[in-house]
Amino acid sequence: MPRLISSLDVDLGERSYPIYIGQGLLSDAELFRRHIASRQVMVVSNETVAPLYMDTLLETLNGLQVEQTVLPDGEKYKTLDVLNRIFDRLLEKRFDRGCTLIALGGGVIGDMTGFAAACYQRGVNFIQVPTTLLSQVDSSVGGKTGVNHPLGKNMIGAFYQPQAVVIDIASLDTLPARELSAGLAEVIKHGIIKDEAYFVWLEENMQALRTLDADALAHAIEGSCVIKSRVVSADERESGQRALLNFGHTFGHAIETGMGYGNWLHGEAVGAGMCMAARMSRLLGWLSAEEEARISALIDAAGLPVRPPDLTPERFMELMAVDKKVMAGQLRLVLLKGIGNALISSDFSPDVLRRSLQSYAA
Amino acid sequence: MPRLISSLDVDLGERSYPIYIGQGLLSDAELFRRHIASRQVMVVSNETVAPLYMDTLLETLNGLQVEQTVLPDGEKYKTLDVLNRIFDRLLEKRFDRGCTLIALGGGVIGDMTGFAAACYQRGVNFIQVPTTLLSQVDSSVGGKTGVNHPLGKNMIGAFYQPQAVVIDIASLDTLPARELSAGLAEVIKHGIIKDEAYFVWLEENMQALRTLDADALAHAIEGSCVIKSRVVSADERESGQRALLNFGHTFGHAIETGMGYGNWLHGEAVGAGMCMAARMSRLLGWLSAEEEARISALIDAAGLPVRPPDLTPERFMELMAVDKKVMAGQLRLVLLKGIGNALISSDFSPDVLRRSLQSYAA
Repeated sequence: MPRLISSLDVDLGERSYPIYIGQGLLSDAELFRRHIASRQVMVVSNETVAPLYMDTLLETLNGLQVEQTVLPDGEKYKTLDVLNRIFDRLLEKRFDRGCTLIALGGGVIGDMTGFAAACYQRGVNFIQVPTTLLSQVDSSVGGKTGVNHPLGKNMIGAFYQPQAVVIDIASLDTLPARELSAGLAEVIKHGIIKDEAYFVWLEENMQALRTLDADALAHAIEGSCVIKSRVVSADERESGQRALLNFGHTFGHAIETGMGYGNWLHGEAVGAGMCMAARMSRLLGWLSAEEEARISALIDAAGLPVRPPDLTPERFMELMAVDKKVMAGQLRLVLLKGIGNALISSDFSPDVLRRSLQSYAA
Repeated sequence: MPRLISSLDVDLGERSYPIYIGQGLLSDAELFRRHIASRQVMVVSNETVAPLYMDTLLETLNGLQVEQTVLPDGEKYKTLDVLNRIFDRLLEKRFDRGCTLIALGGGVIGDMTGFAAACYQRGVNFIQVPTTLLSQVDSSVGGKTGVNHPLGKNMIGAFYQPQAVVIDIASLDTLPARELSAGLAEVIKHGIIKDEAYFVWLEENMQALRTLDADALAHAIEGSCVIKSRVVSADERESGQRALLNFGHTFGHAIETGMGYGNWLHGEAVGAGMCMAARMSRLLGWLSAEEEARISALIDAAGLPVRPPDLTPERFMELMAVDKKVMAGQLRLVLLKGIGNALISSDFSPDVLRRSLQSYAA
């Protein structure tokens, strides 16, 4: 029996939509039907997720004209060419403007399916069914969709909101532990930047999360989505506030690039990156040593690295200088003035950054 | 010296934008600068238009970082693959989110450049410089952008509004007469569906338009844009009212498909299609014989065909049945209850449609 544990609304005026969180929701026919406008439904998934959950979802949608597109698994397939396979399929099956696309998978499937929905006949309905913790807490809110280009990640896309997001916690049962930890990096990030009480709750419940306690997971996911949707509602098209969500990411991107994409999971790089941002905030005198230690301990408890890999400070500075948040030559970082209180700042000397990086080399 | 003859605002709330109409506006540096946010500008054009007007525009934009992408000319290049060349170029030149794309050309260039602007980094600035009469009166208003797919026209795209539309009437000097007439089909259509006074003005000034009188052209283009923007403002995402703009198009599409795309220009097919819709409206008793004759005479005066090619009524009915405006098996047509008063209707017997088609066979 499907069990709805909690739900929330992402408030974006006429583009508002609900996020449902529960156990077994993949089988909740009534829930899906509520957000499907016509008989035509295309489920987009990948070769890893489809064998696990496609049959369940197809049974739930029984009675509708349901077609499927199964893409190869992996970030390297997040391209315009592979996207076109979704359009091929929609047109072969003569799908009209009233159709609904369902993304069944992680972030790549969500990004591509959302972008396909944004573009097909200039916009059709779209339901997200994220099956990884990372996509549940990250891509559920924000409306970012798109594909990569050989010269840059996520360079081609659209802001496009789904009709609904359906998060079935049971789908985490098949998620590798390393990917669960990577998802927890974003969960922890939301607490660090905006909500100390949520951070404290995570300190107390990290074990329950890692052992997949359903109610703990639902609470963590809901909290993350609430925090992210507060930030996004205030800044849908990403000019100011929304940059706070990049906490740990400038350091993290430097790690990913420096180590070669794919060797560190994004969440792992963000885990170490958040520790580095906390260290730098402490060296600026903005964060206490105790707070830095709590941040590091929670990231460690999530099974994530708490220090960067072996890259020289010089190499790090070089990698960070190409980050897209560098405006007019000035590096802007998301830093902390306490847990739950992040800010965007370029108000620091390069020397403090260098000392932060050197502290790990020692 | 550039001479601004008239301008209007397309009212779409925070996505509103101005349309400037004048003589020599391609050289109006101040006008362009007003709508360009940063130094990075990409002009997209095609192999026919670029040799005629690219240099003038580049000189106007002198002082900015201006790059160009010149695409092959023609509807068959309106594909996802060719679109990707624009992205390649933007990324090679390291264009950021603050950049501006300028479409210099007809409808195909406008549709593709607008769609590229909609998708590049999830949306950048976009200025339209339509150089054909058809694109000046049709694509300037409505925000439709996109590309074709082998299985359908305009199947992949976005609704995306430009920062400004700059219409330089001087660019019509190099337009083949046949294409000028094709553009006049849409001009006439706007009068027929919504504005009898405008229709009367066209009856009186058709000769001036065909001999490229600048003030007459500016007046006609402005009038067309005003009518279209009234219709579009009321219905930005195309549910009801906006379908009135398809007047003559269901018949016209049948002609285009029946004759093979490209043999009749779209505007020519619409010209004959409007005559057919007027004929049918008369047979329904909704339009007087005199009004039908005036419509036909004006379309003839514009240098357009006033009767369909040699297709049997059966073939026509077959071609019209696949039109996308067929909902749940019922054919809906835009018909007339007088000049300036169009409506969408399925309130007719197939027999009236058959008799309209047969009247041309006789």
